[in-house]
Amino acid sequence: MSYQISIQKTQNPKSKPDQNNLGFGQIFTDHMFIMDYTEGKGWHDPRIVPYGPLSLDPSTMVFHYGQAVFEGLKAYKTPEGRILLFRPKKNMERINVSNDRMCIPHIDVDFAVEACKTLVNVERDWIPEAEGTSLYIRPFIIATDPYLGVRPSWTYKFMIILSPVGAYYKEGINPVKIYVETEYVRAVKGGIGYSKTPGNYAASLIAQVKAKELGYTQVLWLDGVEKKYIEEVGTMNVFFKINDEVITPSLEGSILAGITRQSTIELLRASGVKVTERKISIQEIYDAHAAGTLQEAFGTGTAAVISPIGELNWNGNIIKINDGKIGETSTFVYDTITGIQSGKKEDTFGWIEEVK
Amino acid sequence: MSYQISIQKTQNPKSKPDQNNLGFGQIFTDHMFIMDYTEGKGWHDPRIVPYGPLSLDPSTMVFHYGQAVFEGLKAYKTPEGRILLFRPKKNMERINVSNDRMCIPHIDVDFAVEACKTLVNVERDWIPEAEGTSLYIRPFIIATDPYLGVRPSWTYKFMIILSPVGAYYKEGINPVKIYVETEYVRAVKGGIGYSKTPGNYAASLIAQVKAKELGYTQVLWLDGVEKKYIEEVGTMNVFFKINDEVITPSLEGSILAGITRQSTIELLRASGVKVTERKISIQEIYDAHAAGTLQEAFGTGTAAVISPIGELNWNGNIIKINDGKIGETSTFVYDTITGIQSGKKEDTFGWIEEVK
Ligand SMILES: Cc1ncc(COP(=O)(O)O)c(C=O)c1O
Ligand SMILES: Cc1ncc(COP(=O)(O)O)c(C=O)c1O
Repeated sequence: MSYQISIQKTQNPKSKPDQNNLGFGQIFTDHMFIMDYTEGKGWHDPRIVPYGPLSLDPSTMVFHYGQAVFEGLKAYKTPEGRILLFRPKKNMERINVSNDRMCIPHIDVDFAVEACKTLVNVERDWIPEAEGTSLYIRPFIIATDPYLGVRPSWTYKFMIILSPVGAYYKEGINPVKIYVETEYVRAVKGGIGYSKTPGNYAASLIAQVKAKELGYTQVLWLDGVEKKYIEEVGTMNVFFKINDEVITPSLEGSILAGITRQSTIELLRASGVKVTERKISIQEIYDAHAAGTLQEAFGTGTAAVISPIGELNWNGNIIKINDGKIGETSTFVYDTITGIQSGKKEDTFGWIEEVK
Repeated sequence: MSYQISIQKTQNPKSKPDQNNLGFGQIFTDHMFIMDYTEGKGWHDPRIVPYGPLSLDPSTMVFHYGQAVFEGLKAYKTPEGRILLFRPKKNMERINVSNDRMCIPHIDVDFAVEACKTLVNVERDWIPEAEGTSLYIRPFIIATDPYLGVRPSWTYKFMIILSPVGAYYKEGINPVKIYVETEYVRAVKGGIGYSKTPGNYAASLIAQVKAKELGYTQVLWLDGVEKKYIEEVGTMNVFFKINDEVITPSLEGSILAGITRQSTIELLRASGVKVTERKISIQEIYDAHAAGTLQEAFGTGTAAVISPIGELNWNGNIIKINDGKIGETSTFVYDTITGIQSGKKEDTFGWIEEVK
């Protein structure tokens, strides 16, 4: 497929934000990418236009029936001014996996990567340079038919917006306390858990609020059928190191196939670490802790890359992991992946794509 | 709570549509109701304004995290020109049940009913009068923070829009063919199934498309844990008549507590019919069919009121119910409820609220 992306530059560029106070997802750049889908015509009119509000009929399907998908990735600026993306093709491939579940027409993966690079290039001055900062990229698709009835939409918008974001760990990496959720369920096999679609996040809010109130940072989800097997942690995949083996839940249809998860597995295996993807129960983690063989636990995801878990609370039974300190495997994965992302470490895996 | 609803009338009223060609959910009236929520301030600024597009930042949370709820009810015009609503308070109470699961602040139920009546009154000329037609009312709430991060929004919009809709059954009631879905899951206990929120509908599309392709009108959902127990049919609750007893799945957290369902139960019980709410497996339905005791099956919901089921396909095993004809219980419930809704039958239950 070959499309021509039209570019309309803003007449009113905003002033750039303070790089030391970016936060996450609150500030947006001067331009955005939009492309429309119309049944019978396919995806058309790719364009970069000044960032601004969407005008949508109140009956627009996405408000009522949630037919939508999204992605999240980051662009990094190296000290030499190169602009790097981390495995962007994986995100665009995953959009199509999500699209399939949501009955949304496929996008062209290579073109979507191209659109992403073109937009990032237009906004290259928006990419922050301070240590740990980056430009967060949010591609998303929404159903736009003005129609109140449950069926797949005949029209969609595919958009990309950009947000400069601060360092996730400003004061060093601190392991987090995680609450094991035993009442609420995020997803179940046969459902939408593996799809990056709004409904999964809406479903998760109530448990997140509860965990926060109890003094925990995030929720560890158990499977929706037996409430025994570990799924994910908040918006991260989860890994455990037991007896020098690294174990992560296998992809059974209810969790997101994280790109950081996959990169972590590939990196560890390349480093000679034994990594196993399988069902793992929360009981097994507690047993390993009791036996003294649970060495580390950590989450993986685009936002933080690695988030070590220092404490778990399962039905009031609290265990501390690795004395509440970050472990060597977590440190190694964090340093290597962030090093490659920021251009400071050699990319022996071919994970990086440069924006020229 | 007492609010003053401001009313701004349109300068450009649309021409009214052909009453014989209304369809469903495609045509909207001249005005809409909006009210805003701001953290710390609560719900404020209730207003009726000309119907028109919403202007929303592309980062608006509802597009990304699906934090939203909705309702659906109808206004009917009687031959004498009275305007009737069917149990509107139930819908507004259910919004708050949905809100609780979605971490959306409660609305004031009585005020929401008031807002609904006020809007319907403004649009009274839009209510069609032909047999079976009505004015569909869609209250909904969306999360409006312009923020990319998973947490409950701090701002919301509560809106009501109206759509004149045609008769569901133009050529008499024809029982439908239903496909029993055994692969995809709509909801699971602990999840969001009992909440009227976009994610449930997004999750259901793929199975609906599959059923249509196979020549079926809708899907019958089984429970997400054992795939044994009957949940709902499309966007309807479901009832079975076996051996003169009417059975419907009990509310266990994964299905919507339908208002037509509740009304059907109340009506049948008042008529001396035995109605049981309990877990019921698809096997039991097939066994009853084999034993010759399955007399009727039907769905209940606001759109069609009653939709008789003439055929089920469960893993390729096809059964015909009541010779593919509408049964006496379905007919009785349909005639009574639509009679009360349209003001033709006496409302002995106190279900009707008149818009004055
Ligand atoms: C539910 C969920 N799980 C896992 C992840 C981690 O995926 P990735 O590593 O691709 O960011 C994310 C974040 O994208 C997520 O939202
Ligand atoms: C999933 C679902 N189940 C059941 C129903 C029936 O509910 P009610 O009778 O209140 O319209 C609906 C429609 O509102 C629905 O969307």
